[in-house]
Amino acid sequence: MLVRFAGLGLGAATLTTVAAASGNTNVDVLTSSFDVSSFMAEPVTPLSTLVKDKDDMKVKMEMLIMKIQADFCRALENEEDPSKKFIVDRWTRAEGGGGVTCVIQNGKTFEKAGVNVSVVHGILPVDAVRQMKARGKELIGKELPFFAAGISSVIHPSNPHVPTVHFNYRYFEVTQENGEKMWWFGGGTDLTPYYLVEEDVRHFHSTLKNACDQHDAGYYPKFKKWCDEYFLVSHRNECRGVGGIFFDDFEMHSQEDCFKFVKSCAESVIPSYVPLVKKHRNDPYTSAERDWQLLRRGRYVEFNLVYDRGTKFGLYTPGARIESILMSLPVYAKWEYMHSPSDGTPEAKLTEILKNPKEWI
Amino acid sequence: MLVRFAGLGLGAATLTTVAAASGNTNVDVLTSSFDVSSFMAEPVTPLSTLVKDKDDMKVKMEMLIMKIQADFCRALENEEDPSKKFIVDRWTRAEGGGGVTCVIQNGKTFEKAGVNVSVVHGILPVDAVRQMKARGKELIGKELPFFAAGISSVIHPSNPHVPTVHFNYRYFEVTQENGEKMWWFGGGTDLTPYYLVEEDVRHFHSTLKNACDQHDAGYYPKFKKWCDEYFLVSHRNECRGVGGIFFDDFEMHSQEDCFKFVKSCAESVIPSYVPLVKKHRNDPYTSAERDWQLLRRGRYVEFNLVYDRGTKFGLYTPGARIESILMSLPVYAKWEYMHSPSDGTPEAKLTEILKNPKEWI
Repeated sequence: MLVRFAGLGLGAATLTTVAAASGNTNVDVLTSSFDVSSFMAEPVTPLSTLVKDKDDMKVKMEMLIMKIQADFCRALENEEDPSKKFIVDRWTRAEGGGGVTCVIQNGKTFEKAGVNVSVVHGILPVDAVRQMKARGKELIGKELPFFAAGISSVIHPSNPHVPTVHFNYRYFEVTQENGEKMWWFGGGTDLTPYYLVEEDVRHFHSTLKNACDQHDAGYYPKFKKWCDEYFLVSHRNECRGVGGIFFDDFEMHSQEDCFKFVKSCAESVIPSYVPLVKKHRNDPYTSAERDWQLLRRGRYVEFNLVYDRGTKFGLYTPGARIESILMSLPVYAKWEYMHSPSDGTPEAKLTEILKNPKEWI
Repeated sequence: MLVRFAGLGLGAATLTTVAAASGNTNVDVLTSSFDVSSFMAEPVTPLSTLVKDKDDMKVKMEMLIMKIQADFCRALENEEDPSKKFIVDRWTRAEGGGGVTCVIQNGKTFEKAGVNVSVVHGILPVDAVRQMKARGKELIGKELPFFAAGISSVIHPSNPHVPTVHFNYRYFEVTQENGEKMWWFGGGTDLTPYYLVEEDVRHFHSTLKNACDQHDAGYYPKFKKWCDEYFLVSHRNECRGVGGIFFDDFEMHSQEDCFKFVKSCAESVIPSYVPLVKKHRNDPYTSAERDWQLLRRGRYVEFNLVYDRGTKFGLYTPGARIESILMSLPVYAKWEYMHSPSDGTPEAKLTEILKNPKEWI
């Protein structure tokens, strides 16, 4: 049996065929349930292992994020010039694992759109352990065997009237020095507009809330607050954007229930965001509005490089693929000494909201 | 007696008069030795205190950095369009002290030129203490009374053939929990070209070496190496630029000898750098060269926000003036996924040097 992968490799429309595991197992039935043919590239883990360990959470998470990646990339391509497609880099990590990075750069709709999946394992170094401990995880030991599977995406549109979105969903396993294995999920989705359209922000938050409410009515209020607190540019005392949801150390239920919640969140990204792209991507804009967008992107860079734990975790993980981690940075950013929008302008209105996060629904 | 300050205030050519301390002291003789009239603004510390404590290292350092600031700003203005002058912001810090920030933005020669002096004191918070401890300083206590006086400057020229320069010279005093007072100096000057002109780099390093050699023949080799190690963008395994000198925890001689060395270093900034501005500021350049400059500025931002201890010390110090700390960031920066210069190009030649720092003299 042959499974086909379209779009494997860097920017080329290569068609690769991969022999699936064979033997006594009914491979056709097993692999068909995986639906890997629609992915942007071959999964990181060999198909034979995916089939064999299909009930392992590591496998379930890898399959989920590969599918979310493909769905999101295709949804974005629908909003882009038809000649502009995601370039797809499938990469491996010498220390264990690898990933699939999909990027559109200098498109008509998307100045930079990055959607990255990584499935890595090995030994967690001290600096990375510290990034985890900062999140409240009590881990025993200095260098610990770990597994991490996650999807991470940042979309910087060309038009200043289309907001930037970021989402990240991840699953961790760490084996402590005493042999005890810990697991947890984390993630979130958040929106960074350059101009505030309250109706759009309410649509975005409502979609996330609906996803949360399917699992627990307490999730949205809790994770909305966490999001406002996490995406804070402390030194400027302003939020990066208008928030969304954010959670970490998520392990309070069965692994399966946690996974289902994460799946709902990840599946809510397209309906929460793509309608906003569709609505505004052809809005007219001035060079002053473009300029404001670049200044706000400077703040985005400040948050990502100074505070973001995901970025730091990446930078401190040996053999990490820097280009995949820093694809979250915009093509252009700007800093102006003492820039401050004039009172009563749309720019001042946004700034006011960033300094005083509010309830949207 | 009246002492005059030209250029005080934000961008206005205000002429302010300040009454010096009077009394039995021969104020005229004392103040004339201070030569404060040429400064960009009134010093942070009241003139009466400066006169009274003129032999205190805190005062000597403040007077030095105010003079270096004025000399450097005037030297840069000579290379700029005559209509474009430094704006001068004199600011105070609620927790103690203040500073003078001088900026040219969107000039003909300088896209952004920032020269900042700060003279601050108060209680050093835990996070800032940690930034110091990371430098090897063993400090006893969690919240310590401190004094810091420093000059810090980053010059981002418009023309990609003119390198960026950064320098910073600082003096610290910290009183530990046991009452013991510690003091030390730190600083350095380093160059970040976009295109490598070896003769220029040799001129730059020779000028710094001459300044060092007046004090100890061992300083330049030691501080040149330290500079290469400090200004390393670890996650890219490349240096920020072609180095210069860098030192910290400088306290091995008498306070007076240390000060004299720092003074020599600070005075070598103009002769090391301004000739390079003069030589290249009118060089023709292409849009591709401008693009490369912006990509390299992206790397500059990465270093400053991820690694630079001075920036972190600032961000973690309560009441710090963020606009003065982040004036080191360029007006424009750019990030392109997987950008890599083609073999044999001047861009590749620079990259090679950044990955393998060399001896210049």
